Amino acid sequence: MRVLILGGDGYLGWPTAMRFSARGHDVSVVDNFSRRRWVEAQGSDSLTPILPLIERIAAWKEISGKDVTPYIGSIEDAEFLEGVITETKPEAIVHYGEQPSAPYSMGSREQAVETQQANLIGTLNLLWFMREHAPEAHLVKLGTMGEYGTPNIDIEEGFIEIEHKGRKDTLPFPKLPGSLYHLSKVHDSNNIHFGCRIWGLRATDLNQGVVYGIETEETVQDARLCTRFDYDEVFGTVLNRYCVQAVIGHPLTVYGKGGQTRGFLNIRDTLQCVELAVENPADAGEYRVFNQFTEQFSVGQLAELVQRCAAEVGHEVDVEHVDNPRVEMEEHYYNPTHTKLLDLGLDPSYLGDELVRSMLKTIERQRDRVIESAIDPRTRWNPQREPAAS
Amino acid sequence: MRVLILGGDGYLGWPTAMRFSARGHDVSVVDNFSRRRWVEAQGSDSLTPILPLIERIAAWKEISGKDVTPYIGSIEDAEFLEGVITETKPEAIVHYGEQPSAPYSMGSREQAVETQQANLIGTLNLLWFMREHAPEAHLVKLGTMGEYGTPNIDIEEGFIEIEHKGRKDTLPFPKLPGSLYHLSKVHDSNNIHFGCRIWGLRATDLNQGVVYGIETEETVQDARLCTRFDYDEVFGTVLNRYCVQAVIGHPLTVYGKGGQTRGFLNIRDTLQCVELAVENPADAGEYRVFNQFTEQFSVGQLAELVQRCAAEVGHEVDVEHVDNPRVEMEEHYYNPTHTKLLDLGLDPSYLGDELVRSMLKTIERQRDRVIESAIDPRTRWNPQREPAAS
Repeated sequence: MRVLILGGDGYLGWPTAMRFSARGHDVSVVDNFSRRRWVEAQGSDSLTPILPLIERIAAWKEISGKDVTPYIGSIEDAEFLEGVITETKPEAIVHYGEQPSAPYSMGSREQAVETQQANLIGTLNLLWFMREHAPEAHLVKLGTMGEYGTPNIDIEEGFIEIEHKGRKDTLPFPKLPGSLYHLSKVHDSNNIHFGCRIWGLRATDLNQGVVYGIETEETVQDARLCTRFDYDEVFGTVLNRYCVQAVIGHPLTVYGKGGQTRGFLNIRDTLQCVELAVENPADAGEYRVFNQFTEQFSVGQLAELVQRCAAEVGHEVDVEHVDNPRVEMEEHYYNPTHTKLLDLGLDPSYLGDELVRSMLKTIERQRDRVIESAIDPRTRWNPQREPAAS
Repeated sequence: MRVLILGGDGYLGWPTAMRFSARGHDVSVVDNFSRRRWVEAQGSDSLTPILPLIERIAAWKEISGKDVTPYIGSIEDAEFLEGVITETKPEAIVHYGEQPSAPYSMGSREQAVETQQANLIGTLNLLWFMREHAPEAHLVKLGTMGEYGTPNIDIEEGFIEIEHKGRKDTLPFPKLPGSLYHLSKVHDSNNIHFGCRIWGLRATDLNQGVVYGIETEETVQDARLCTRFDYDEVFGTVLNRYCVQAVIGHPLTVYGKGGQTRGFLNIRDTLQCVELAVENPADAGEYRVFNQFTEQFSVGQLAELVQRCAAEVGHEVDVEHVDNPRVEMEEHYYNPTHTKLLDLGLDPSYLGDELVRSMLKTIERQRDRVIESAIDPRTRWNPQREPAAS
């Protein structure tokens, strides 16, 4: 199959590119290296040393014998994107090509606007060119579980049947996104749904949980194939952050009470889910939503897990409840459905002590690369608000 | 009260500016004249001859003795907008400053991107600067009933209590917007709700029905004070379009079966509603939604009404069911709630024969200005789709 991966140089994009290539698909990747620039601009860097895209692709060719075709540019650039679509004639488009950080989107007006503009306009360009040049292609779009927020009812997969005043309809699940980044994903979801309803496009919106992990089947084959790994307050996801903190002896930074509960999944399962979506495409005109996570934890539970595993491998570390820089509920109901990917055959790698210890080992090898100044939370959701007494 | 009106040169913005000024408020208006340019670029023009903003303001000063302060620029321009907010220190901000046409947003990729970018980024800039410089100001934002689409249940005012699997929550009403313009308003609503939830801003989102009418208490005081009136397929609203068609003897262009039912209101009631919202502000942190319309009609019913009234004043005209350029349900359930503005004291001007005849009379005086080539629908929602056999 001809698979086009947008954001193919990123944490998930690069492993996804290798995975589809390894499976014999004809893979092209698009990237403009924004992620590398954003992370550097925040004074941080990938913990793992990553090669430039062209060198990664050459290493992959050497190891696998397979070609991946790079296109360097921004999907906000309409002329560039139109050229890519007409040249690659994709059958599946896996879209990771967005600004992915909630704190980044809350850091300044400029970053807020950059996030919503890059994500919304890039995806809108894509939908328009799918309509014009690839109406049969299947869009597999990375969304986030954070689009839903934490309502007081069970979260369904994209749609909910509502009975109201004696009538019934199945409607988009109401969203309460928690940052301007999460909002950009909600805007995308609404635009993509429209593209399916009105233009007959086919799309799968993967509302992904928080991803953790460093390694996939392909990245471990050669050091040159490793993917990026961020641990800073802006681009690091929570479990990855805690593991790096443990290795350098920094107290684990739990925001507030730590009862914030989210869906989580291993990076290996991200690849499995995206593959399942691509192999089982949506119908023409269908907009499907899969809740893509395998387990749920509170951030406090994760801190305890990391603390315990770290102690076992010789890193004693405290858990510190820092003043919450975000505005979010710290104790809440959370019970999202996530059966659609299991029904397609997802075989999860659950989070356990062994995985955490293995992550800690991998991190230890890069210990010298950790930039400590990038760790403590600085980005406040509402700077006007008094910090809660803690 | 210090009232800032964004889009103060437009169909509704200009009459709103005069209304607040007449009531003794300290009024500033922002406009970049996009609307004038967009309409001209579509090969059309306001039916009513309108003066440049500066001359309108001078005429208003001459007639009322009152000052209105103009700021010429785009709210997408952050530096400009920040200057306006800090200089005017608004207590209420009435926000009409957006690209308001559904067909315009569907006409090309460029227009789609322009619409979502102008509307989303302009409003996001505004929210950010309210947070920074005017956290107590009350935002009164013009949204649209078209955000909801036509679900098979009663539409509530912004929020709905959902009972699901034995639990309950009151959540944003699910939206099914019918164009990329309507989507931009949904994106705005989501961003504004966030600004209230996270930053404690106060906002009223007016989900307005389709506006008709030419005259308000202030516009009739002098020909120089009249507001614009669009009748072309892109910027004209449906009743206004039918009235112009009737006067020039063009068959009334009903799209498809004509069962499409929407909420409607007189331009005089728009001013009344906006005033009621401003006089009864939302609380700090409150995001309120009012469904702003007074009656509902199908477009087929409106065509019959105009046909009958036109015949009474000597214009015999046919009703033509043209192939629907939009993708929309032509027969559907529609029963939106709209009690909140009535509860605040809205006293509606209902649509009747007399109003239609008076519109026809006003239009007759400008008959020579009608550009006939701008009337027939050309913008197709899905050009790939075969026209339905009609």
